[in-house]
Amino acid sequence: MTSILIKRTHECGTLKVQNIGEQVSLNGWVQKRRDLGGLIFVDLRDRSGLVQIVFDKDISLEAFEMAEELGSEYVIAVRGKIYKRQSINPNIPTGEIEIFAESLQILNTAETTPIYIKDDDDVSENLRLKYRYLDLRKSSMQYNLIFRSKVANIVRNFLSQEGFIEVETPMLTKTTPEGARDYLVPSRVNPGKFFALPQSPQLFKQLLMVSGMEKYFQIVKCFRDEDLRADRQPEFTQIDCEMSFVDIEDVLAVNERLLKKVFKDALDIDIQLPIERLSYEEAMERYGSDKPDTRFGFELVDVSQAVKDSGFKVFTETLQHGGFVKTININGYGDKFSRKDITSLEEIAKTYGAKGLAWMKVTDEGITSPIAKFFSEAELKDILQLTNGQAGDLLLFVADKLQVVYDALGHLRLEAAKRLDLLDRNEYKLLWVTEFPLLEYDEEDNRYVAKHHPFTAPMDEDIDMLETTPEKVRAKAYDIVLNGHEIGGGSIRIFSSQLQQKMFEVLGFSQEEAWEKFGFLLEAFKYGTPPHGGIAFGLDRLVMLLLKEDNIRQVIAFPKTQNATCPLTNAPSYADEKQLKELNIQSITTKES
Amino acid sequence: MTSILIKRTHECGTLKVQNIGEQVSLNGWVQKRRDLGGLIFVDLRDRSGLVQIVFDKDISLEAFEMAEELGSEYVIAVRGKIYKRQSINPNIPTGEIEIFAESLQILNTAETTPIYIKDDDDVSENLRLKYRYLDLRKSSMQYNLIFRSKVANIVRNFLSQEGFIEVETPMLTKTTPEGARDYLVPSRVNPGKFFALPQSPQLFKQLLMVSGMEKYFQIVKCFRDEDLRADRQPEFTQIDCEMSFVDIEDVLAVNERLLKKVFKDALDIDIQLPIERLSYEEAMERYGSDKPDTRFGFELVDVSQAVKDSGFKVFTETLQHGGFVKTININGYGDKFSRKDITSLEEIAKTYGAKGLAWMKVTDEGITSPIAKFFSEAELKDILQLTNGQAGDLLLFVADKLQVVYDALGHLRLEAAKRLDLLDRNEYKLLWVTEFPLLEYDEEDNRYVAKHHPFTAPMDEDIDMLETTPEKVRAKAYDIVLNGHEIGGGSIRIFSSQLQQKMFEVLGFSQEEAWEKFGFLLEAFKYGTPPHGGIAFGLDRLVMLLLKEDNIRQVIAFPKTQNATCPLTNAPSYADEKQLKELNIQSITTKES
Repeated sequence: MTSILIKRTHECGTLKVQNIGEQVSLNGWVQKRRDLGGLIFVDLRDRSGLVQIVFDKDISLEAFEMAEELGSEYVIAVRGKIYKRQSINPNIPTGEIEIFAESLQILNTAETTPIYIKDDDDVSENLRLKYRYLDLRKSSMQYNLIFRSKVANIVRNFLSQEGFIEVETPMLTKTTPEGARDYLVPSRVNPGKFFALPQSPQLFKQLLMVSGMEKYFQIVKCFRDEDLRADRQPEFTQIDCEMSFVDIEDVLAVNERLLKKVFKDALDIDIQLPIERLSYEEAMERYGSDKPDTRFGFELVDVSQAVKDSGFKVFTETLQHGGFVKTININGYGDKFSRKDITSLEEIAKTYGAKGLAWMKVTDEGITSPIAKFFSEAELKDILQLTNGQAGDLLLFVADKLQVVYDALGHLRLEAAKRLDLLDRNEYKLLWVTEFPLLEYDEEDNRYVAKHHPFTAPMDEDIDMLETTPEKVRAKAYDIVLNGHEIGGGSIRIFSSQLQQKMFEVLGFSQEEAWEKFGFLLEAFKYGTPPHGGIAFGLDRLVMLLLKEDNIRQVIAFPKTQNATCPLTNAPSYADEKQLKELNIQSITTKES
Repeated sequence: MTSILIKRTHECGTLKVQNIGEQVSLNGWVQKRRDLGGLIFVDLRDRSGLVQIVFDKDISLEAFEMAEELGSEYVIAVRGKIYKRQSINPNIPTGEIEIFAESLQILNTAETTPIYIKDDDDVSENLRLKYRYLDLRKSSMQYNLIFRSKVANIVRNFLSQEGFIEVETPMLTKTTPEGARDYLVPSRVNPGKFFALPQSPQLFKQLLMVSGMEKYFQIVKCFRDEDLRADRQPEFTQIDCEMSFVDIEDVLAVNERLLKKVFKDALDIDIQLPIERLSYEEAMERYGSDKPDTRFGFELVDVSQAVKDSGFKVFTETLQHGGFVKTININGYGDKFSRKDITSLEEIAKTYGAKGLAWMKVTDEGITSPIAKFFSEAELKDILQLTNGQAGDLLLFVADKLQVVYDALGHLRLEAAKRLDLLDRNEYKLLWVTEFPLLEYDEEDNRYVAKHHPFTAPMDEDIDMLETTPEKVRAKAYDIVLNGHEIGGGSIRIFSSQLQQKMFEVLGFSQEEAWEKFGFLLEAFKYGTPPHGGIAFGLDRLVMLLLKEDNIRQVIAFPKTQNATCPLTNAPSYADEKQLKELNIQSITTKES
């Protein structure tokens, strides 16, 4: 059971009618064995697919007798001749042929597997992750990993051809000021000190621009110690780019061509360039979201003016306190939503801070709504005109401060589209969202904070407002959105010391504080920093969306659970006291076990 | 100073005589400015190289006056027309032309840099690392990083074309039993538990073979918390491969073609296949090393038989205690080594455990040596015959137990070759070393330990000796050596449970211990594991050698010092108490500062 006597000449899934008559050797796994009419049939599987092997006493008694021992997932090597199959199996590419075995070698046996090796096996994800090596034998998972590898290759080759240089930046680096929570790594050689795993190569890629690399990229692991969601992992992979001597249009242009290349070469889909753009402001006004899914309508409409003098106090009082009343028109689907359905939509709206959800159905007889009575004919007419309301429509209203209105209606339009099955999985809708606000006011800290990061450049025409109305300053920042998911984002960076100094002032940092937090970058900026900017894509999420998967773990070979553990290796685990002592740390927790 | 008004149409270093008469725009850094004869000359630098810009009042007074402000490393954009240069500079590719500037934009200023931006600047490495972003502006460092990126690309494209799939394995994983020291990462969500950063993806790549990926590769960061040497870093990059349904020859064959491709495409050097092979035993006997530099001779010769009855007690007593007497003939260079030189060689031999170094010079008059008197004419004749000693040769003898003889003479032959300048930097000598011992006896632990790792397969013909004479069992393990440096290594793995069980017995593990240490891999092996094996190359070291650099830090963008610190970012650094508390750990060291 040690040496392979029969080495493969072909891969199982590649054999065709054209090969009939050929002598072939194959290696692989027994997918299934059936004994029928004095013959033994084996579906043999390798990475390329399946093929049927037939064992016949009259051809080789020895091989037949060995074949009687075969069980599922046995690893075998087989030699034989290809024949046309009598009963064609149209479900597999090799279904027109079969191989009559002349010799067989059992390379390894297999115990009964704890999960079935088939795509539609309905087993808990925890069990799938514990036996990931079996789960990855499924053709769907193999396809996903091969596809992921292909996408990475397309990206690398495209960027290399465009003159980008892949430079590896450190994994053991310094803790990030003002970022998410870091993973720390105790240093043995430097007692009491810690490395941090990078949240992104942001500072290093800017330093590479200072160093004159001009066009940098990297496909690189990044780390954030945050609580997990379906599309988040403690470690994730970024396609990270940075360019010098560029402005927004240059970055967007090369990345549009990158995306076009990926869609074409990975999916054979032609996407039209330029990719549609929305300013942040327009995205919020029309979709209530800075990452709108634009595969469908149901856009937000402001009806504040139309209802400001109505008898409906919920609306008028909100407006008097500076709020807004907006609506979405689920046009044409009014009859799909019962009162119960609308109540469940209201529950969703409430999770986003709305106090309630008002609604109107437009019918041939007029408006049906519990709140219709509070409005005059003229007001109702105005509402219908603003929303283009027709018989069969459903209008959903949220009245609140602007952010709550956006959040609630933005999610409601998505929820309605989901329930109506309007999200076409075969449609890929790309969108740039640009002109993000540079700053957000942090109520807790009582100061402005950078929405992107403190090195993001303001739009040239807004620089003057930095001192007067900072909240109105737009950034040279952009996100790329695919079907309502942010798949990447970036910005043009500040490269002038004066502007950077002004930015820190707006953020409320003294010069000392700024220096303490970002000293080595500020120092670098003194020695001739070129204009630069870049972008980073989330590779995991991009691949997940390209593959129409709902869960990021479907495109990662060995992912962590929502609890940041690995059921396969049982990582993380307890460390030896000796290890910890060498690292000059101790645990300050009582072991649960 | 925010927007680029003059965007590059060309790159500086690409302009040629053919471009004369063209209007071009360039972006880059001021390498040097000279004011001469009423004109201002600027050497403009970008990633592609240098070109000369001339500012002439008569062409643009405005540009000329701005140019008067230019200092070294200012970032500028310039537009002008290309002319034939009057005084040609043969040292740069663009030396035949120059650009008369019609407009200039100063994109950024620069303070005087703490290190010069030129390749031959003789400055301390610590200062170079502190200002790495300036150090990387040097054309030699840019060349190194671009070359490294190119090598990685060649490897990826070759392996992809060969059907290897790049699969990313986890960075946050489980501590390695029986390996080097791990870097640990405390888990916040799982108090008291730790992830480990991978020393290699070894277990995961074997699991990927169990999962039927068949051909895997990855260019991946690995981590070892060991004390550093010139060619070691805490984090390093491996080209990691694994294949199923293969034996040694298959792995060696594909990797030979990979190396041929790398040498051809990166250096335009044709290497001859197959690559030469030596068994471990032969490598040790002939060169005293398992990674011999075979660019030169000076091979080891055993003279034990010839001297066993001599009057030289140092030799005879060593032989009586089971030791060996071996020599290397520094043939033809006897007159290059004075007594003082030989004494310094003896000091080196002593650092490898030798008690002394005996020597003989062969001259036209016979043998000159302090120990000649202890040997008969016949014995001396035998020695000369065995070593092919001729007039002008120097023989160096070490008498000791075998390992000390190998270590001392192996290093002496290398040292002698270095002093004689015989190591041709333009020669690349590749060598496979095969048939490593499977096991080593660990005197401290009083048991056998795996020389490679416990999953390395024994040679088929040696399996029977596992129970009788384990120390004689050879492994299906191989290293690839380039000019005396190990640049990669791997093995065929055990894939049969029975053989694995026997291996653990030899290693002195009970079944429980084996399960505790390698449980999840043993579990995986039960479900149909294919024969498999692989290799890993050290990318940093490979690139260093291809570039003829002596120091691995020359091919890493942001390396650590020997003390595992980063002078640029000051990583590692102290962490907030709050951070440590969240991670359920505390430092048990007193801060030095």
